[in-house]
Amino acid sequence: MNSMRNALFADLYELTMAACYFENKMFAPATFSLYIRKYGANRSYFVSAGLEEVLEYLESFQFAPNELDFLASTGLFRTDFLNYLEKLRFTGEIFAIPEGTLFFKDEPILEITAPIIEAQLIESFVINAINLQVSIASKAARCTHAAKGKNLVDFSLRRTQGTDAGMKAARASFIAGFGATSNVLAGKHYGIPLSGTMAHSFILSFKEEIEAFRAFARTFPDRTVLLIDTYDTLCGAKKAAQVGREMSQRGLSLKGVRLDSGDIAKLSNEVRQILDEAGLGQVIIFASGGFDEFEIEEVLSKGARIDGFGVGTKMGVSADAPYNDIAYKMVEYDGRPALKLSRAKKTLVDRKQVFREKRDGKMSGDTIGLRSESLPGAPLLECMMREGKRLSPPEALPQIRQRFLGEFESLCEAYRATKNPKTYPVGLSPMLEAAQSKAIRDVKKRELGESS
Amino acid sequence: MNSMRNALFADLYELTMAACYFENKMFAPATFSLYIRKYGANRSYFVSAGLEEVLEYLESFQFAPNELDFLASTGLFRTDFLNYLEKLRFTGEIFAIPEGTLFFKDEPILEITAPIIEAQLIESFVINAINLQVSIASKAARCTHAAKGKNLVDFSLRRTQGTDAGMKAARASFIAGFGATSNVLAGKHYGIPLSGTMAHSFILSFKEEIEAFRAFARTFPDRTVLLIDTYDTLCGAKKAAQVGREMSQRGLSLKGVRLDSGDIAKLSNEVRQILDEAGLGQVIIFASGGFDEFEIEEVLSKGARIDGFGVGTKMGVSADAPYNDIAYKMVEYDGRPALKLSRAKKTLVDRKQVFREKRDGKMSGDTIGLRSESLPGAPLLECMMREGKRLSPPEALPQIRQRFLGEFESLCEAYRATKNPKTYPVGLSPMLEAAQSKAIRDVKKRELGESS
Repeated sequence: MNSMRNALFADLYELTMAACYFENKMFAPATFSLYIRKYGANRSYFVSAGLEEVLEYLESFQFAPNELDFLASTGLFRTDFLNYLEKLRFTGEIFAIPEGTLFFKDEPILEITAPIIEAQLIESFVINAINLQVSIASKAARCTHAAKGKNLVDFSLRRTQGTDAGMKAARASFIAGFGATSNVLAGKHYGIPLSGTMAHSFILSFKEEIEAFRAFARTFPDRTVLLIDTYDTLCGAKKAAQVGREMSQRGLSLKGVRLDSGDIAKLSNEVRQILDEAGLGQVIIFASGGFDEFEIEEVLSKGARIDGFGVGTKMGVSADAPYNDIAYKMVEYDGRPALKLSRAKKTLVDRKQVFREKRDGKMSGDTIGLRSESLPGAPLLECMMREGKRLSPPEALPQIRQRFLGEFESLCEAYRATKNPKTYPVGLSPMLEAAQSKAIRDVKKRELGESS
Repeated sequence: MNSMRNALFADLYELTMAACYFENKMFAPATFSLYIRKYGANRSYFVSAGLEEVLEYLESFQFAPNELDFLASTGLFRTDFLNYLEKLRFTGEIFAIPEGTLFFKDEPILEITAPIIEAQLIESFVINAINLQVSIASKAARCTHAAKGKNLVDFSLRRTQGTDAGMKAARASFIAGFGATSNVLAGKHYGIPLSGTMAHSFILSFKEEIEAFRAFARTFPDRTVLLIDTYDTLCGAKKAAQVGREMSQRGLSLKGVRLDSGDIAKLSNEVRQILDEAGLGQVIIFASGGFDEFEIEEVLSKGARIDGFGVGTKMGVSADAPYNDIAYKMVEYDGRPALKLSRAKKTLVDRKQVFREKRDGKMSGDTIGLRSESLPGAPLLECMMREGKRLSPPEALPQIRQRFLGEFESLCEAYRATKNPKTYPVGLSPMLEAAQSKAIRDVKKRELGESS
């Protein structure tokens, strides 16, 4: 429902290259590696997310008749190739890092081995799916860290980049420690707990603010959170306190108030005092309006008395790092290592594995090695799919979230810092280094005429 | 197909507020206004886009049985309210600025008048749809401006924020002057011309670079654009020139080469010389890799000899302004103006119109007035939907694109500048100013006890 399964979700060159492979009878297996080349501002880790969508896509990959008709209408492709596409399914193998796991720059999050046409045609979808959820989960993890245990609610739906992103922001932020979402469809589709209060328009639609408060409390006596900044936050707090006392007299309990503007640190203390003086110590204060990890950290450091945050736009678009330098690169074809020469951008050849070591329960360093190696530490990439069939059913979202929370706990504070974090150590194994050097020498000799 | 039609694409509060309106028999019409409160960095205009998706959504708006079942399962809603939702359709009126039109800060791009529950339930979808396409079209327009007539191709699919954004980036960039997209599904769905070359993996899958070039030229003799930077751009250019000469000898013509890395200004001149010396003056040079308006302007100012650009990630996520401060605010309920008091955020009350004046064919200034006013200039908002039915069929995309190109031509250079543009003049009509002041006085008196 929330992902686009079309096989035409592809860049044209994937199809033109495939046509050329077909014409040249190139059906040998290729391995492509997906990895991120750089950290965004203040970033020092990534959270794996999006794999489930990729596995679903690959398992059902096929061209629909109307898609083939469209390709025929372009006049670019021969009939024998289109007939071949009609029967094409994904028959490859996937190694990947499970969702909710932390990973780092240059580490393959996913490696696909499949006949080259299959591995090439799925490129854009695979990058798109993983990139989005990794971006959002990584940003959301930073918010979780800054919130120091306060409840976080995904409020991003309205300003995410499109409907698919709206759904994935709810999923990825829940994986990364958020407690709920305002997105009703995500509640339905993913089983994420729902949360919501009221909008300013609700207050405005009543003749007086306090009447709006009373009406909402009548309809939702168990879960009333009053938005108090429509006219003036402190006036609003006093009216909320009055409604809270009225509810208490009826044996009910006002759940909370929400602040959405102004100096949240200062206002939250003043509102807390108003509520406490009214005997409403149990009423929580919830804050929203432009929060991300930086603002959360700032208001908490200033002594804000906030019990939970609605985190919206900046998390939902990963505003300070709205994309990753993510690459899907061929690292092996027909048994030979494949390597693009580039001073700026490093591709690591061959099928790989990441080995993670721990010391005293904390992650101490990763080594990227060849997949055939056995190195100290736990291997991160697992075989998820073989011959186009997944090896296990989808993981439950709470289980992925639990994995993330465990992983995040084992990452030292220096790497989790909101600003200027330390760089986590990732090395290459001597065997990978040797394979890499040999591949570079071979390419230079072959293509540039340099002697080794 | 590419948008999510679910009525549950909503924030929970829209449903809880609706339940409360229902219980309080509040069915009077409300008017909500959608507008952007701030310009992003270096921004001074927005391009209207996304309206078509909103009209489609509203015309087919309804709750599906499984959505109502889900709402029932939350335990939040009474059966009479769910029965009401089952029958609910959108019956309201839409005034909006047509797609492809330029608009500015604070100007309503869309105003919805409908029974308050309807107008409230569609909030998240409407904001999401318009915000995404406005962001991308506005960013893409900046690229169009910087490219000074060079051909631009949308390459953003792989790194947009999700599948929906991938489709909308193709659509919005085409509206804003791009000539083609690499996104095959967008070609099929929107009829946008397709463009594509080859990936580095294609080169790597052949034993030698030149063999990859020859193979592609055999399969696509009419549209071969060779990617020449896999190993070394100048070596690649010489091999491309050789293949180009081989094609010429067979009566064919190499179409182009693509540069994807390095110092593009310098390399493009060197590659041009290699091609020209080989008698291949007709072969175009296409560049990609990290381009947006700033990079395009920079390489062109350095004398790059580039015939077209592939513009990807930074455009597709509007990287330097990945979200807008866009608001959907109630401005009237049941015949009374509605107004939130806020020092930082201004809402303009009442149903409005934007009047645009021109001088010597150039846009000279806008006035936001009441919709009932007749002011000098052309009114921008048109009635697009009445009683839930659209008043005209969807506009053809080329027509929207043509509108944009005409509009952009009429915007003075000072407002289009890539960096530090001038602010376009937008004023309020005296009648709107008066209505606004009166509303503020009334609210302060009522809610804060201030005397006028």
